[in-house]
Amino acid sequence: MPELRYNVITRDWVIIATERAKRPDQFIRKQEERKVLPSFVANCPFCPGNEKMTPPETYVVPDSKTWQLRVTPNKFAAVSREGERSRTVRGIRRTVTGVGIHEVIVETPDHSKTTALLSDREVEIIVEAYLNRFVAASSDSRVEQVTIFKNHGDGAGTSLEHPHSQLIATPVITTQLRDRLMGALHHLDEYGECIFCRVLEQELAEGGRIVLETPHFVSFIPFAALTPFSLLIMPRRHMACFDEMKDGEAADLAHNLRNTLARLYHGLENPDYNYVIRTAPPENRGVKYYHWYVSIIPRLTKMAGFELGSGMFINVSLPEENASFLRGVKVE
Amino acid sequence: MPELRYNVITRDWVIIATERAKRPDQFIRKQEERKVLPSFVANCPFCPGNEKMTPPETYVVPDSKTWQLRVTPNKFAAVSREGERSRTVRGIRRTVTGVGIHEVIVETPDHSKTTALLSDREVEIIVEAYLNRFVAASSDSRVEQVTIFKNHGDGAGTSLEHPHSQLIATPVITTQLRDRLMGALHHLDEYGECIFCRVLEQELAEGGRIVLETPHFVSFIPFAALTPFSLLIMPRRHMACFDEMKDGEAADLAHNLRNTLARLYHGLENPDYNYVIRTAPPENRGVKYYHWYVSIIPRLTKMAGFELGSGMFINVSLPEENASFLRGVKVE
Repeated sequence: MPELRYNVITRDWVIIATERAKRPDQFIRKQEERKVLPSFVANCPFCPGNEKMTPPETYVVPDSKTWQLRVTPNKFAAVSREGERSRTVRGIRRTVTGVGIHEVIVETPDHSKTTALLSDREVEIIVEAYLNRFVAASSDSRVEQVTIFKNHGDGAGTSLEHPHSQLIATPVITTQLRDRLMGALHHLDEYGECIFCRVLEQELAEGGRIVLETPHFVSFIPFAALTPFSLLIMPRRHMACFDEMKDGEAADLAHNLRNTLARLYHGLENPDYNYVIRTAPPENRGVKYYHWYVSIIPRLTKMAGFELGSGMFINVSLPEENASFLRGVKVE
Repeated sequence: MPELRYNVITRDWVIIATERAKRPDQFIRKQEERKVLPSFVANCPFCPGNEKMTPPETYVVPDSKTWQLRVTPNKFAAVSREGERSRTVRGIRRTVTGVGIHEVIVETPDHSKTTALLSDREVEIIVEAYLNRFVAASSDSRVEQVTIFKNHGDGAGTSLEHPHSQLIATPVITTQLRDRLMGALHHLDEYGECIFCRVLEQELAEGGRIVLETPHFVSFIPFAALTPFSLLIMPRRHMACFDEMKDGEAADLAHNLRNTLARLYHGLENPDYNYVIRTAPPENRGVKYYHWYVSIIPRLTKMAGFELGSGMFINVSLPEENASFLRGVKVE
């Protein structure tokens, strides 16, 4: 019989299709859908030599030739860097001016080098850029929430194939985040513990869904994973906000992220995926009840009417089998 | 400058990209992506003559030859029709046995006839089937929530192209629905009104986002539409639960649904879409604070990392322009 599992962090229910679950290897990308990218594309706005196609840099990591990583304002920004934040309430209408920050992190000069193929040090440079830009965005008084995310591949909604990620800082806190903050606060009030610390402790005790343990981080497929192979990378130490990381933790996150993504890359033949840093808003730095983490969502199935209409998902795979599969993938 | 709009029903924020919005006609499906289906496919499990490929019917509308509409249990059900509902709570783990009902509504014997191409009477037969199966599912004591939905086209997650919709009845109420019920209840407590009635009143007063008015229903693109061309069809009369419809209302819903879908079909060249009936759970029949409606979600853009990671959407179109475009589409 299928099993409904409850995610105590997001409060989502998922139907785990225990009996007719697909095997992990049924999610491997088909030969005809695989794509090899060139190292350089002449008209790619993110390839070296084309820097004039993007707005002036806000952050750059130089290397011996030109640069290893660049951050620029998004040329087609979803929010406007200029202007005042202003809220209007009229009857049931609520609007806020669309001000904020939208930046692109160009992760490497090499068009073909997705995160799974970079070195630990190269990924550490990306994490350091995230930290720098997170702090910079947080210091803008119009900003309430900062979302750092990556879209890898067509199925994940990317429009440019050159490896990059994005930061969007918005002038409101979204309901999704507010609800999770409130849920976590209630858990602290009732049980005197961080719900995230508790989830991590339980996952480590059960063990079967762990993918990779490193000194400061643990990557695992959660008990109530909504979709096949969705993963969390959670810091062992309690921290509410992404920029509370200390020396050594950023490097370890980079190593864990690269290794985990490499397991997806080699195990499932480069699936499309999104990842996002789920963090408390800057104003909640240091709180006892929230705990930041990275969420990786391979796009192996499509959201359909049931998921959109109910908020409940059907996971056609077993988190335990998928984690075991990923543990078995050989990566450097 | 972009504008952030707030959906008072779902509590979602959306960034409306006012300046670089796409024009409505930029969402028309490209010639090479259009597909014409045959009326009959020999190995389609939903085509007439292949009834043995599906489980025995739970509901059927006969016609002079064989049938006009059939409902059967889903052969690959997400939940099990047999078994007891049983909840387990152990530490932070919560699970429920995956019991419930998963049915397929085969909407027409003709493989090629999507809803937009049916007659009003044929769509009325579909709505009547929804009502019958909603009531039947609701009467199962294990069932807490009933979701009726349709996936039209590959991009909407359908695996079978023969026109059909589905019903999934689950043994829990999802957090998405519970949160909306609570939000609407708070609004009633604070303002003494149904928030949905209020939204409809305001949309009718402003007028610019209305697509079609019929005697009992109004279809419109909401003020804070999360995605391009997403539509609501809302009953004018206050009703919490789908099965509270009275004589004449089902026929009018059928007419409004067909006409609205025909505007999408002819205006955008048969876009993929999902629709879902968003209703109060059966146990909340008759409440003053909730109001059922149909939500239509054309799948014209992809959810990417920002949407998944924040719950906030970026709508690259203007609801007002899209509604005006749909009003101008000629349908029979």
